[in-house]
Amino acid sequence: MPVNLSVFEDFNTIDGIKIGTTNAGVKQTSRPDIVVFELADTATTAGIFTENAFCAAPVQISKHHLANAQTRYLIINTGNANAGTGAGGYEDAIEICQAVAQAKGVALEQVLPFSTGVIGERLPMGKILPAIPKALEQTQANIWYDASRGIMTTDTQPKGTSTQFEFDGQTISISGISKGAGMIKPNMATMLGFIATDAPVAKDILQEICSELGNKSFNRISIDGDTSTNDSCMLIASGCAKVEKLVNKQQPLYAVLKAELEKVFLYLAHAIVRDGEGATKFVAIDVCHCENSKEALRIAYTVAHSPLVKTALFASDANWGRILAAVGRSGVRDMNVDAINIYLDDVCIVEKGARAESYTEEAGAAVMKQSELCVRIDMGRGEAGETVWTTDLSHDYVSINADYRS
Amino acid sequence: MPVNLSVFEDFNTIDGIKIGTTNAGVKQTSRPDIVVFELADTATTAGIFTENAFCAAPVQISKHHLANAQTRYLIINTGNANAGTGAGGYEDAIEICQAVAQAKGVALEQVLPFSTGVIGERLPMGKILPAIPKALEQTQANIWYDASRGIMTTDTQPKGTSTQFEFDGQTISISGISKGAGMIKPNMATMLGFIATDAPVAKDILQEICSELGNKSFNRISIDGDTSTNDSCMLIASGCAKVEKLVNKQQPLYAVLKAELEKVFLYLAHAIVRDGEGATKFVAIDVCHCENSKEALRIAYTVAHSPLVKTALFASDANWGRILAAVGRSGVRDMNVDAINIYLDDVCIVEKGARAESYTEEAGAAVMKQSELCVRIDMGRGEAGETVWTTDLSHDYVSINADYRS
Repeated sequence: MPVNLSVFEDFNTIDGIKIGTTNAGVKQTSRPDIVVFELADTATTAGIFTENAFCAAPVQISKHHLANAQTRYLIINTGNANAGTGAGGYEDAIEICQAVAQAKGVALEQVLPFSTGVIGERLPMGKILPAIPKALEQTQANIWYDASRGIMTTDTQPKGTSTQFEFDGQTISISGISKGAGMIKPNMATMLGFIATDAPVAKDILQEICSELGNKSFNRISIDGDTSTNDSCMLIASGCAKVEKLVNKQQPLYAVLKAELEKVFLYLAHAIVRDGEGATKFVAIDVCHCENSKEALRIAYTVAHSPLVKTALFASDANWGRILAAVGRSGVRDMNVDAINIYLDDVCIVEKGARAESYTEEAGAAVMKQSELCVRIDMGRGEAGETVWTTDLSHDYVSINADYRS
Repeated sequence: MPVNLSVFEDFNTIDGIKIGTTNAGVKQTSRPDIVVFELADTATTAGIFTENAFCAAPVQISKHHLANAQTRYLIINTGNANAGTGAGGYEDAIEICQAVAQAKGVALEQVLPFSTGVIGERLPMGKILPAIPKALEQTQANIWYDASRGIMTTDTQPKGTSTQFEFDGQTISISGISKGAGMIKPNMATMLGFIATDAPVAKDILQEICSELGNKSFNRISIDGDTSTNDSCMLIASGCAKVEKLVNKQQPLYAVLKAELEKVFLYLAHAIVRDGEGATKFVAIDVCHCENSKEALRIAYTVAHSPLVKTALFASDANWGRILAAVGRSGVRDMNVDAINIYLDDVCIVEKGARAESYTEEAGAAVMKQSELCVRIDMGRGEAGETVWTTDLSHDYVSINADYRS
């Protein structure tokens, strides 16, 4: 049961983008497991990718193709990650790109492949190759919801959102989908994200926006501290809206578009945490007054990954000693424990490094019982701060990961 | 149910060391919760302590006292860690030392205090102070087993071992006990260890041995990646055996004694992992052919702490993709994934960064079903290696930590 996450179906169409889906039988499911995005020739595309050293073949290829050509097709399969598959896996991913390129008369480099699912098994090419023409034949503008279902793996529900805003007398639309539920840690989550707008944006500006917003959203979520081999988030600007093309950051469209995209990036990233494997709580870890961002992130992730903190969250036990112990072992140099205050929402639990005098178990327990809460850690040593979002550690997490071959 | 760990009762007496135990009612248990060690005036003592910035009051005091006086008494309570308790908690620990010092006519600094249990609550001094004389009155030489029970917290069984060896016509004895079952990560585990020999050893040599062996054993175990505020391991040499005192490392006794002590340190550290909260498996993560030890440890702990690897171990699922993904995200620079081989015991699962051609699910599953196994990661880039020991992540881990206020 995801934490306060509802299924979204009412996507805005993005002119210049068509989507096709089909069920190739890669995954044992009635949902689509192949999704194709077809982009207008006015489109620009940007992306961020996993930093795992074992990045999967499709990630290597997508990075290379994105850098060297104008992207026209994205093809995604679920059920198999095509990771840890060596040279053969690389050839399989190229063959998929070739199939799309030949069918549509574009260059190989104009196709980006994405895979998610089991690691270490070769793709069932006999199922995927015949499915590609089917997906390409049926592309439509309005099936974002189908696509959101088509990229699911252990997700309990599809994730998507959509928004519109007025600019220069025109309506600009944004739609986005994401997937991921476990193996979530920067950089990035085991996640795929596909976000598109019809605004026209130069590729370099689009890449800057994608990197900045991805860093604030998908790279700030953690479910279990594991980073996948396949994470990718793509941002597409179809260029079909009739406004002046965004080519430098001084144009008024820049700030407006970035602010709207930021909401979409955050929504899609938070949706992954809300649907975290076995999650019963959605928790922000907000670390402030640090010497620098790196230090703040180090503390935030140490707390976010602590199994003892996470099981206490699951138990709704305001066990502030575990939070304090996690902060203490985060490895920050010259930590002055007497300067540290810790809060659960507005309840001060640790004051000057020890249990706050005003603290009562009742007040702590009341916050811990909420399905959403913030653990705020004030280090009292500088001006930098960072927030990461995470979940608790429940029995269901163990069940899901002990039973599922991901 | 600990993994292949039996209860040890047949300790060798260590001349020059007496032990007293009593039940003060700090912890809701019929076991003793106060343990006192009384050391002969010929004894030397060494110790290693937690590196958590929030180290508890008794740890601060023990470090200080150990450095400044000859230790004559160790007093341990379970049920309450006296951590995160501020200045009041510090005064409580001093008051306990004073009670022992006054009763036995030694200096305050000759008493070392130890506490383990709940963080953040003041010690119940009204229960502890009256219990101290009782524990001191009943000291005996042969109640190591009682002491092993008296230091337990979430441990499912007491942990201890004992050995003897002949040197220079004399019998030298070693006995040791440890506790700890969760919040286990260097440096160090949530653990207490007390190891004693009757050999006479100069304090500086004893400290060197304690640091070196502690680093190879208690600092190489991890159950959940959490490091406690109270970890301490003490090594005592009573000086009562009739052999020449060990004052430099060239004496023949040095190598012999260290080798025997190493077995005891490793046994006691492994016992903590075997009794890890919810553990169903005892797993060595052996990382070899790294550029340096730091790199090897980084990889070993990333794998050992991965919830996805740990749940796969619990499920006996040879999900080598999760191991490979954990290695890949360990943050080692310029990792050449094509040089990496990974083994489950002798079964090669990853060869040159991809699934080994010789690998079969059956061979992997056979190893994963064992209650003890080794995950060997050959990075193929240097000569350094490190081993850490860990457990799986089971439903019982979640139950224990969601229910128990530790």
